[in-house]
Amino acid sequence: MWWHGPLRRAAFHSAGRLIGCPHRFSPADISSVIMAQQFAIGVDYGTNSVRALVVNISNGAEIATEVYDYKRGDAGVMLDAADPNLARQSPADYIEGFHAVVAGAVRKAEQTACFSPQQVVGIGVDTTGSTPLPVNGEGVALALLDEFKDDLAAQAWLWKDHTAHREAEEITRKAREGEYPYLAKCGGVYSSEWYWSKIARCMRNAPHVAKAAAAWVELADYVPAYVTGNLHPDAIVRGICGAGHKAMYHLEWNGLPSAEFLDSIEPGLSRFRFTGKVVPSNHPAGVLCAEVAEKVGLPAGIPVAAGAFDAHMGAVGSGCGEGTLVKIMGTSTCDCMVAPLAKRLPDVPGVCGIVPESIIPGMYGLEAGQSAVGDIFNWFAKRLAPAEFGSGGDAQVKLTEAAAKLRPGESGLVALDWHNGNRTVLVDPLLTGLLVGQTLHTSAPEIYRALIEATAYGALTIINRVEEYDVHVAEVIVCGGIAEKNPLVMQIYADVCNRPMKISRSAQTCALGAAIFGAVAAGAYPTVEAAQANMTGVKATVYEPIAANVAVYAKLYAVYKTLHDAFGSTGFHGSLAGVMKDLIAIRHEARCGAK
Amino acid sequence: MWWHGPLRRAAFHSAGRLIGCPHRFSPADISSVIMAQQFAIGVDYGTNSVRALVVNISNGAEIATEVYDYKRGDAGVMLDAADPNLARQSPADYIEGFHAVVAGAVRKAEQTACFSPQQVVGIGVDTTGSTPLPVNGEGVALALLDEFKDDLAAQAWLWKDHTAHREAEEITRKAREGEYPYLAKCGGVYSSEWYWSKIARCMRNAPHVAKAAAAWVELADYVPAYVTGNLHPDAIVRGICGAGHKAMYHLEWNGLPSAEFLDSIEPGLSRFRFTGKVVPSNHPAGVLCAEVAEKVGLPAGIPVAAGAFDAHMGAVGSGCGEGTLVKIMGTSTCDCMVAPLAKRLPDVPGVCGIVPESIIPGMYGLEAGQSAVGDIFNWFAKRLAPAEFGSGGDAQVKLTEAAAKLRPGESGLVALDWHNGNRTVLVDPLLTGLLVGQTLHTSAPEIYRALIEATAYGALTIINRVEEYDVHVAEVIVCGGIAEKNPLVMQIYADVCNRPMKISRSAQTCALGAAIFGAVAAGAYPTVEAAQANMTGVKATVYEPIAANVAVYAKLYAVYKTLHDAFGSTGFHGSLAGVMKDLIAIRHEARCGAK
Repeated sequence: MWWHGPLRRAAFHSAGRLIGCPHRFSPADISSVIMAQQFAIGVDYGTNSVRALVVNISNGAEIATEVYDYKRGDAGVMLDAADPNLARQSPADYIEGFHAVVAGAVRKAEQTACFSPQQVVGIGVDTTGSTPLPVNGEGVALALLDEFKDDLAAQAWLWKDHTAHREAEEITRKAREGEYPYLAKCGGVYSSEWYWSKIARCMRNAPHVAKAAAAWVELADYVPAYVTGNLHPDAIVRGICGAGHKAMYHLEWNGLPSAEFLDSIEPGLSRFRFTGKVVPSNHPAGVLCAEVAEKVGLPAGIPVAAGAFDAHMGAVGSGCGEGTLVKIMGTSTCDCMVAPLAKRLPDVPGVCGIVPESIIPGMYGLEAGQSAVGDIFNWFAKRLAPAEFGSGGDAQVKLTEAAAKLRPGESGLVALDWHNGNRTVLVDPLLTGLLVGQTLHTSAPEIYRALIEATAYGALTIINRVEEYDVHVAEVIVCGGIAEKNPLVMQIYADVCNRPMKISRSAQTCALGAAIFGAVAAGAYPTVEAAQANMTGVKATVYEPIAANVAVYAKLYAVYKTLHDAFGSTGFHGSLAGVMKDLIAIRHEARCGAK
Repeated sequence: MWWHGPLRRAAFHSAGRLIGCPHRFSPADISSVIMAQQFAIGVDYGTNSVRALVVNISNGAEIATEVYDYKRGDAGVMLDAADPNLARQSPADYIEGFHAVVAGAVRKAEQTACFSPQQVVGIGVDTTGSTPLPVNGEGVALALLDEFKDDLAAQAWLWKDHTAHREAEEITRKAREGEYPYLAKCGGVYSSEWYWSKIARCMRNAPHVAKAAAAWVELADYVPAYVTGNLHPDAIVRGICGAGHKAMYHLEWNGLPSAEFLDSIEPGLSRFRFTGKVVPSNHPAGVLCAEVAEKVGLPAGIPVAAGAFDAHMGAVGSGCGEGTLVKIMGTSTCDCMVAPLAKRLPDVPGVCGIVPESIIPGMYGLEAGQSAVGDIFNWFAKRLAPAEFGSGGDAQVKLTEAAAKLRPGESGLVALDWHNGNRTVLVDPLLTGLLVGQTLHTSAPEIYRALIEATAYGALTIINRVEEYDVHVAEVIVCGGIAEKNPLVMQIYADVCNRPMKISRSAQTCALGAAIFGAVAAGAYPTVEAAQANMTGVKATVYEPIAANVAVYAKLYAVYKTLHDAFGSTGFHGSLAGVMKDLIAIRHEARCGAK
């Protein structure tokens, strides 16, 4: 069924770049424009639901969307009362979800005047990750087989499953001790959330599942494989994004970690080194197979891009490019940057992931992140807002109003934003929050503002780190609810970072990014950048740095940096850098009973 | 009229130590016991009112009390809208107050079956300080003269008047530069609250008042002088407590600072070096004069003890003695300790005052203090208690209840208790609060408890410092509202300090202490200790350290100490010890407008 894609590409190219939306049409024009309009569909798998978005590829117009809430488990997450670290998902939800959202979005799009299913040129998929699942020799998810359908170990191991923390520590330790290079691209520490930790854990804890598995597949690769019918483990196309950021795949060491290394973690682990193609998402994983096409109301044969993680495609949907940091800001942030491959970027200490082509082909993809941002604001509003500010969301609004009336520096407060540890650049989940400067006059809005400022200092610390390594950050595009709802946060970020803060135009940047890759993988655009130029944009309101505030924040940031460096180093007991760890050790002992 | 005192003393001694309150009396016994009962009156001058307390000297029973609220100014404090540092009081309030409370207390005592004015053996006076006032050549307070009655500079300069902060800095600087020894006994820094700062300020700011003044007299000395009629400036008896703690009087340098030093601060300042006797409060300042005696309904001739400051007499009323630290705990604390003169105590760095015989004759008196204790709890409850805890006093109760359910260490939090600076041992008003260990789960009661614990660590830091200099602290007696109302605070202090915490039996320890000195100065007891043995006591409930908690707090205190030493040293810009100062400088600039 490969004909469909090339044909469609040819059709597109003959229409050339002249399509789009001129402001005035004659009735005859309208007919021809409608005929020429082309669409891509982005499918975005989140933690609790999946969304499809139908996008006009000439201008990024989002003409229809559909959401499906996963049906299994607790809001789609299967839990184990005996182990709070466990979080699994059913592949059945992924498949049913794909059918439901694509069919639903297509139906809604058909209700608009300008869409028909034949005009869909490509499909892209982004997912959470690392969310690997075991498949059998035919590429069927084990969890879909009767034998394993109730077996938690046979489901998809959701990104936030932390059952493999011991395995992760072992991988980190053995890589360091053996002086293997594998941690260089992932900030120096392998996570319990990632591919190899989870597989090793399954081998130890549920060997019957590991034994039945012919391969483990990232959700981002599984969905394209399933909908294209290219399911054979040896044939499954793997996205470079998942492989590079989670499975330690890197050309510097010719792909995956060596069998010797993997087997030193758990004998036989090397059996799950994958063998298929590893490609960036501008490459198709295949084309929509007839069976799925029928279910979703689309023609078979539409190219489906290789999958990638939500944040990375979200960055593309937000307009990420050289010099532009995209911050996906919610409870935490994911920060994405790119730099030309020609730069031959060295390892950047503390940056979670540096993977060639993981975001944009031809560019390094850099992923960083702040472990808590909106979570800190929510925490304060929920736990410490006095009665006069109301409660819940209302408290946030009132605290923000009051905090907005303060001048930078006038509270005399500085905080460290480590309430959920520090992901970048310290890569230490055991760090905690700190507030200094309180007096008997300190008010709740002052502390609230200090916490907002602290997250901005955290953002600047990431920017400074990558700039030290020659990745220039001229501006920041923020997407997520905070960006749209909280001008105070945006202005503080602009002033602290001394860079313009822009807001992504789309509210569905991940799905939009997936649609962009759908269009590019289909050949409708020659490059991701060309697609972005037409399909992405920012809102009219841009937060520019205010010089007077920039000057004050430069002084406050110096204080933050002093605290950051003192408390953030790997400390030993009794030192200032050991303070947070000592407190956690004492806390642990107190909670687990006196020894 | 001196006969009265010696006669009464003789009568007491002939009755011997056999008086007291046996549990069973025959009617004949009761009559003889009533005849033998003797009483002392303590008069306690606070910031807004003065109180008299009539005490049975045989057992400390408080049989009558009377309070007088000052009439002038704002609750007794004369303010200046143009200068928030100014706080003055009218000597007329002191005099009218003495008449009112002593007369009132005597009347109330007479309504009991066992009291007559003839049974009063002595009177003691304690006051706030340093609260000096200018007098003319006859010892009349200038403010009582028509010419000066509306002149703020001629009133008493209340302890919390901070108009002389520049003069205080000058005294500290010149003493250091000139290598004078005078700061050695007052923690190394001279305060704007104290005697010489205030007089120098008056000389500069209100020279007409300074010129009219023949002397300046501490309120603690002025009241005894007035009520005994010994008002001539050369004859006024000065208490060692005020002279030593506030006027840099010390035998090590033969009394007051040299004329040369004082005149280097302000030419002519040396004119206010006082010349009369300087004595501890077991010495009488004289006897009640006929004029005052008539007004208060007492016989003339009753010995009146030399005055001292409220906290010092309060310490005696609480049972202060060798090995017993008395903490007067309210919004802040005053900590009093004693050590035998035979120990030849060296200077203890950071302890505000070390003055021989300022608390108990024959002992060094040591004064330390925490700048904020109850104030920190109030601040948190008022500013940061979420709605579910109610507001105001109610919030304190509910936060305390919730905090009491937590185990030591389980919050993972440690705070520094410097929200109002640090008086002992760092002597630095520019330090601020700090909280470390916050996570997204941290709750308001956890922070509230951490703040209580922080003040306990502050208390232990003082204990440790004096113990390093060989002043042993075996137990702590606490007085003030917190001690009686908050068992959680008391238990935490016991566990952190690893010492029993006892609560003073009397709710009026200052007035009780003054009454004790009245009794001792009258010769009714040979020593302060003998009087304390009969007249003071602690409540039945004693908070004993709980071993398991002591062990956890030892670890947490190590963390506190690390933070204390890192942030508490005199830091330079850019260092961790400079953090709090840098923030205050930035705050100052932000509040006073950009430069």
